[in-house]
Amino acid sequence: MSLLKELDQKDPAEIGGKLHRFAAELYPICRSITGDGLRQTLARIQERVPLQISEVPTGAPVFDWTVPKEWNIRDGFIKDASGKKIVDFQRCNLHVLNYSTPVRAKMRLSELKPHLFTIPEYPDWIPYRTSYYKEDWGFCLCHNQMLALKDAEYEVFIDSALEDGHLTYGEYYVPGRSTDEVLISCHACHPSLANDNLSGLAVATALAELLSGRDLRYSYRFLFIPGTIGAITWLASNHDAVERIRHGLVLTGIGDAGGFHYKKSRRGDAEIDRAAAHVLHHSGEDSEIMEFSPYGYDERQYCSPGFNLPVGCLMRSVWGTFPEYHTSADNLDFIQPQSLARSLRACAAIVDVLENNRRYRNLNPYCEPQLGRRNLYRSTGGEAIGVEINARLWVLNLSDGEHSLLDIAERSGLPFPAINDAAGVLRLNGLLSVVPDRAAGEAGPNGASQVARSSSKG
Amino acid sequence: MSLLKELDQKDPAEIGGKLHRFAAELYPICRSITGDGLRQTLARIQERVPLQISEVPTGAPVFDWTVPKEWNIRDGFIKDASGKKIVDFQRCNLHVLNYSTPVRAKMRLSELKPHLFTIPEYPDWIPYRTSYYKEDWGFCLCHNQMLALKDAEYEVFIDSALEDGHLTYGEYYVPGRSTDEVLISCHACHPSLANDNLSGLAVATALAELLSGRDLRYSYRFLFIPGTIGAITWLASNHDAVERIRHGLVLTGIGDAGGFHYKKSRRGDAEIDRAAAHVLHHSGEDSEIMEFSPYGYDERQYCSPGFNLPVGCLMRSVWGTFPEYHTSADNLDFIQPQSLARSLRACAAIVDVLENNRRYRNLNPYCEPQLGRRNLYRSTGGEAIGVEINARLWVLNLSDGEHSLLDIAERSGLPFPAINDAAGVLRLNGLLSVVPDRAAGEAGPNGASQVARSSSKG
Amino acid sequence: MSLLKELDQKDPAEIGGKLHRFAAELYPICRSITGDGLRQTLARIQERVPLQISEVPTGAPVFDWTVPKEWNIRDGFIKDASGKKIVDFQRCNLHVLNYSTPVRAKMRLSELKPHLFTIPEYPDWIPYRTSYYKEDWGFCLCHNQMLALKDAEYEVFIDSALEDGHLTYGEYYVPGRSTDEVLISCHACHPSLANDNLSGLAVATALAELLSGRDLRYSYRFLFIPGTIGAITWLASNHDAVERIRHGLVLTGIGDAGGFHYKKSRRGDAEIDRAAAHVLHHSGEDSEIMEFSPYGYDERQYCSPGFNLPVGCLMRSVWGTFPEYHTSADNLDFIQPQSLARSLRACAAIVDVLENNRRYRNLNPYCEPQLGRRNLYRSTGGEAIGVEINARLWVLNLSDGEHSLLDIAERSGLPFPAINDAAGVLRLNGLLSVVPDRAAGEAGPNGASQVARSSSKG
Repeated sequence: MSLLKELDQKDPAEIGGKLHRFAAELYPICRSITGDGLRQTLARIQERVPLQISEVPTGAPVFDWTVPKEWNIRDGFIKDASGKKIVDFQRCNLHVLNYSTPVRAKMRLSELKPHLFTIPEYPDWIPYRTSYYKEDWGFCLCHNQMLALKDAEYEVFIDSALEDGHLTYGEYYVPGRSTDEVLISCHACHPSLANDNLSGLAVATALAELLSGRDLRYSYRFLFIPGTIGAITWLASNHDAVERIRHGLVLTGIGDAGGFHYKKSRRGDAEIDRAAAHVLHHSGEDSEIMEFSPYGYDERQYCSPGFNLPVGCLMRSVWGTFPEYHTSADNLDFIQPQSLARSLRACAAIVDVLENNRRYRNLNPYCEPQLGRRNLYRSTGGEAIGVEINARLWVLNLSDGEHSLLDIAERSGLPFPAINDAAGVLRLNGLLSVVPDRAAGEAGPNGASQVARSSSKG
Repeated sequence: MSLLKELDQKDPAEIGGKLHRFAAELYPICRSITGDGLRQTLARIQERVPLQISEVPTGAPVFDWTVPKEWNIRDGFIKDASGKKIVDFQRCNLHVLNYSTPVRAKMRLSELKPHLFTIPEYPDWIPYRTSYYKEDWGFCLCHNQMLALKDAEYEVFIDSALEDGHLTYGEYYVPGRSTDEVLISCHACHPSLANDNLSGLAVATALAELLSGRDLRYSYRFLFIPGTIGAITWLASNHDAVERIRHGLVLTGIGDAGGFHYKKSRRGDAEIDRAAAHVLHHSGEDSEIMEFSPYGYDERQYCSPGFNLPVGCLMRSVWGTFPEYHTSADNLDFIQPQSLARSLRACAAIVDVLENNRRYRNLNPYCEPQLGRRNLYRSTGGEAIGVEINARLWVLNLSDGEHSLLDIAERSGLPFPAINDAAGVLRLNGLLSVVPDRAAGEAGPNGASQVARSSSKG
Repeated sequence: MSLLKELDQKDPAEIGGKLHRFAAELYPICRSITGDGLRQTLARIQERVPLQISEVPTGAPVFDWTVPKEWNIRDGFIKDASGKKIVDFQRCNLHVLNYSTPVRAKMRLSELKPHLFTIPEYPDWIPYRTSYYKEDWGFCLCHNQMLALKDAEYEVFIDSALEDGHLTYGEYYVPGRSTDEVLISCHACHPSLANDNLSGLAVATALAELLSGRDLRYSYRFLFIPGTIGAITWLASNHDAVERIRHGLVLTGIGDAGGFHYKKSRRGDAEIDRAAAHVLHHSGEDSEIMEFSPYGYDERQYCSPGFNLPVGCLMRSVWGTFPEYHTSADNLDFIQPQSLARSLRACAAIVDVLENNRRYRNLNPYCEPQLGRRNLYRSTGGEAIGVEINARLWVLNLSDGEHSLLDIAERSGLPFPAINDAAGVLRLNGLLSVVPDRAAGEAGPNGASQVARSSSKG
C-alpha cells in the first residue's frame, strides 16, 4: 500500500499525539550549534531511526567558515543582594545567552545591563539570543522583570565551557531503487523552542520512520544538523551525496496553528516546488507559496549559487512574522497535535508525488480507447462523469510521453492521487506503458539520464 | 466582397429566421448514431449543399472501436390496463431510450420501473438517454407522470431493429487555393433536441452555403457525423484529409440565449484558438474562453494525443451547465433566431481571420512613411487620430515579416477587420508587400512550408 | 560620488526653480519645425551645454520624406472694421496657425471662418494648430471670441515666409568609456507650450549638465530636434551613431503635476524599459507603465521596424488625455518646479541603473561567505536584518555571472541603489568579481560583445 494511503488509515489524533509527545521529550534539553545538548537530542532521535552521527573537530575549515569551539553549559544565574536567584538557567535554558562564555562576578546594575536582553513589546516573555561568533556573555529575561531590578549589586554566574571539541550532526539514509536522493533537512540547534524547531525534528523523524523499509523509487537522506554552520559543514564534507540530490525540503516551524507556507527553491520551478505547491493547494488548509529569498533557514546554503539545489522550505507560520518567534512563548502550547499530524501528512503527500511522478504513453493515442467495454466508463449516456473517469480521460489525453503525472494533475486541477490511481488502472488494463524512469536507473531508449544535474565542488 | 462584409449587409432577423426554420424542419426526426433518421437529416442538408454521404458497415474496426449495429425504430409506447397509450414515441421521440432493443410484453409496474428514466429535479421534462454499447430497452418520461403510475399491469412495445447495417456520415468539401483544410464538425445524432445540436447543424449548413463558390485561401471540410463513433470512424477512414487539417471548429449548442463559450484546442495556442478568442472578444456579446479538457464533444477525438489537431469547440451555454441540457426542454423555443444569426456571424468572422491572417513587410521600414502625401493621414495637426489611421500605424510598425495581422490585432487591441483593411490600403499604396503564403502554396524564399504539421497514423 | 547621490544632496526646490526659470526663458519664443525660433531656442541651450548645431537644406531627401521649406514669421493679426487688432500674434504666438503662408486681405466673416480654429469645449483657451505639409493660412483663437465676431469685414495679415532654407537641430555628445550610446531626445518645435515640451527641454538640458565631465560607462547623445521630421532627418543622417544606440529615452511632458508614465519601447523588454519601470516603481510617486504603441512622440521613428531601437518615452500626464494639451492652457502655471525636479531625479536614477547595471560573480559560491567576521553582518543573532544586509545576501545569492544587478533588484524588490551599494561593499571585501563589461570594451573571456546590435541602413 502506498505511504499516503497507509497514513490515511491511521487515526490523526493518535499521530498528532505521538508527534507532540516527542517534541515534549526534547523540549527541556539545552541545545546549541555544538555540545552535549545537541548530542542528547540526536540520541533520542536515534532511539527511533538508526541515525549515523558525525563529529567534526573545532577548527576544521568548511568553505569560507571554520568549525567553532564546542559550547557546553551546566548552570547560570543572577543572584540579588539577598542571595536569591532571580534569573535561573535551571528554570529556563533561554535565560543564558546561547554560547555565553563563563563568568563569575559581582557588579552593579549599570554594569550588568549591557548583558541583559529583553523584549519590551512582550514584557512577560524571555527572548532567545545567541552569540556564536563574537565571544560574549549575557542573560535573557522578561522585560518587566528587568524594569523591576533595583540599582544594587548582583552576582552573575555562568558555568559554561567554550573549548576545542566537535560539531555534531546526524544523518539517516533510507535506500531506494535509485541512488538519486531526496534531502530532508532540519536544524536541531535551538534550545527550548517548540515550533522552531522541535516541530521539524518530530515530523522529520516520523517521516523517516514511515519511509524505513519501504520499496522506494528514490533514496532519502534525513539531516539533523545545527543551523547554518551544520549545513555548511555537511555540504563541505559530503560532495558525493550532494551531487545525488534531486529534490529537497527544509522542515521548520510546522507545528503551530497557522496555515502552510512553502518557500520555493532558488530555481523557482523545480519539481519539489511544483509538488509542494500542488499538495498544499489540495491540502484543505490555507496555504501560501512564497518566492525564494536568500534569508531564512538552511535552504540559504543549499540554494547558494554554487550548489543551487532544488531545495525548498516547508513551514506553517513564517519566522519573524509571529511574535512568539524566538521567545519563551514558542513553547509546547504553541504547537498543536493536529497541526503536527497534518504537516506530516503534507510531507507524505509530497513524497507520494515525487515517488510516483512518472511519464506514461497512451498505447491507443488515436482517438479515445473504448473505456466502456473495459468497464472503465459509465454504460448509460447522459450523466455527468465523476472525478475517477475524468482523471482517466486526462491521463489518456496527456500521456504522450512528454507530460508527467504532476503536469497532468496541474493542468486538470485534479489531486495527484486521483491522477496516479487513474494511471495505475489504465496501465493494468493495457492502455498505458510507462516511460522508463531514469531516476531509478531503468534503461531508456538511449540509456542516458535526462535528469538535470547540478555540479558541486568544494 | 469579403464573406463578412457580405453577411453584414444582410438583415440579421432574416438570417436568424432561416436558421431557426431549418432547425424546426429537422426537429421531428428521430436521429441516432446510425439509421434512417440520420440519413433523412443528411438528405435535408443535401438539399442545401452537395453533401457526399458515406456508409461504413457494422463491424468495421475503427481504431479501438467497432462500428456498431444499425438502429431503426418505427414505434414505441406504454399502454395502461385500459389500453390507453400513456407514453407514446409518436408524440415525442425522446420517450424511447435511444438504441432500445425491441420489446413487446406485459408487466407489472415493479418490473417496468428499472426501464423508466426521469428527472426528479425537473418533473415535467422528459430526459434524453441512450444505451449504445449495452443492449437494453427503456422509456424516458416526466417524473410527475411516473409518480402517478398505479401498481398495475402495463403493455410495453418498442418496434425497433438493431441489426447489421451501416453508420452514415456526410461531408461537404469546399475547395480553396490551398489543399490545407479547415474542419467544421457537427454531431448529427441527437433526436428532438434543438440546441444540442440542431443549432450546430443549421449554422454549419449556412456557413457552408456562404463559403460555396468563393475564392478561398483554405479548403473547407464540413462534417455532419454521429458523435464520438462518427468522429472516430471519420478519423480512421480519412488519413490524407486528417493530415491536411490546419484549423478546426466543433459547432454545438450555439442557438440558446447565453453568451459565447470557446473551448480551446489541446494545443491551447493554436491559430484557431487565438482567432476565436479575438473574434469573441470583439463580438459585442459576453464570451468566455475555456481551457481544453478531455471531456466534451468530438474535439475529444480530434485532440487525442496521436492527432493533437488544432480543433476547438464553439458553444453558447456549456453542456451540463443548464438544466435544459439533454431534456425535452431543449426544444425550438430554447433556441433564438437572433442567437443563431450572431453565431453564424461569429463563425464567419473566425473564417475571415483565418482567410486573411497573413504576414506583410513594410517597404519603408526606416521611420514612418509619409502618409499625408498619400492622403492616408489627417492633414491638419493637433487632432486625435481615429481607428483607421491607428490601424495603419500599427500595421506599418509591426509588419516586419514576422508579425501576422492577428498578432497585430491582438497587440493593438483593434478588431481584425480594421487591421486587415489597413493592410489592404497600405498594400494598394505600395507601402507593404505580402509575405508569400505557404498555406496557399505560394513560393516563398526557400520554397518550404513553415506550417507545423501534425502526423496522423491509423 | 555618483550622479544620483550628488543630485540628492542638492536642494530640490532650488533645482526645480532653475528648471522652471529656464522653461520660462524659452516660453515666449515662437518655435516651429524650422526657422529662427528653433535656432534661438537651441542658442539658449547652447549657453548651458556645448550643442553642435546642424542645418539640413530644404529639399534634402530623408527616407520617405523631404526636408520642408523653412518657415519664419514676423507678425500676424486680424483687425476689425474699426482697425482694432482683435487677434494679435504679438500677444500670443499660438494665434497664427503654425506654418501659415503669408496673407494680406480683407474679407467678410463667412470667408474668414474656414481659417479660424477654436476649441468649443474650452471656449477661453486658444488651440495650437499646425499645417506643415499642406500650404494654408489660419488663426487660432478662443471660441467665445469667435462667437462674438460680427458679420462684418475684417483685415487679415500674416507676415510670414515659407521659403527654401534649412531644418535645424542640436546635438550634444558626452563621451564615456564606451562608444556605446544612450540617446536622450526632445522635440523643440512647439511654440508657447510649457509642458509640451519646454519641460522636456529643461530637464534634458539639466541632465546634460549633470553628465558633463563625468567618468561615464556609456556615451550620451542629447538631441534637441523638431518632432517627426527632425527625428527622421537625424536618423537618415547619422547611420553610425544610430548603430551605437544601446538605450534611449524620449523626454516630453514631464513638468505637470500628474504622476509618471513610461511608454515602453517596441521591444517591450529592453533594459531601458526595465530600468525605467524599476525606477518609477521606487520613485515614491504614482506611476504607470504603458505598452508601446506606434502613435506618440519621436519614439515612433526610433521604434520603426527597420530600426527597432530600445527607446522608450518618459512623461507625466499623457498627451491627449488632459484638456490643456496643445492649448494656451499648457502655460507656465501648468508646470511645477517640484515636478520638474522630480522628473530630473527620475532621469538621473535611470541613468544610474544603466551606468551600474553589471554582472558580478560570487567568489565564494558554495554556501554563504561568513559576513560576520568581515563586519558585514550583525553579530548578535535573533534580530531582523535590514535592507543593507538583505541586499548583500541577494547580491551574493544571485551573482552567478548570469544575473545583472537590475535582475537582482527586480527579484528582491529592493531599490537598485541598495543593490548597487551592496555589490560595491562586497567587491571591496573581495567577495565579488566583476564580469567584464563588453559595453565599455573591457576584455571578456572570448573578447566578443554580447550586446545585441540592431542594424540600421538608410
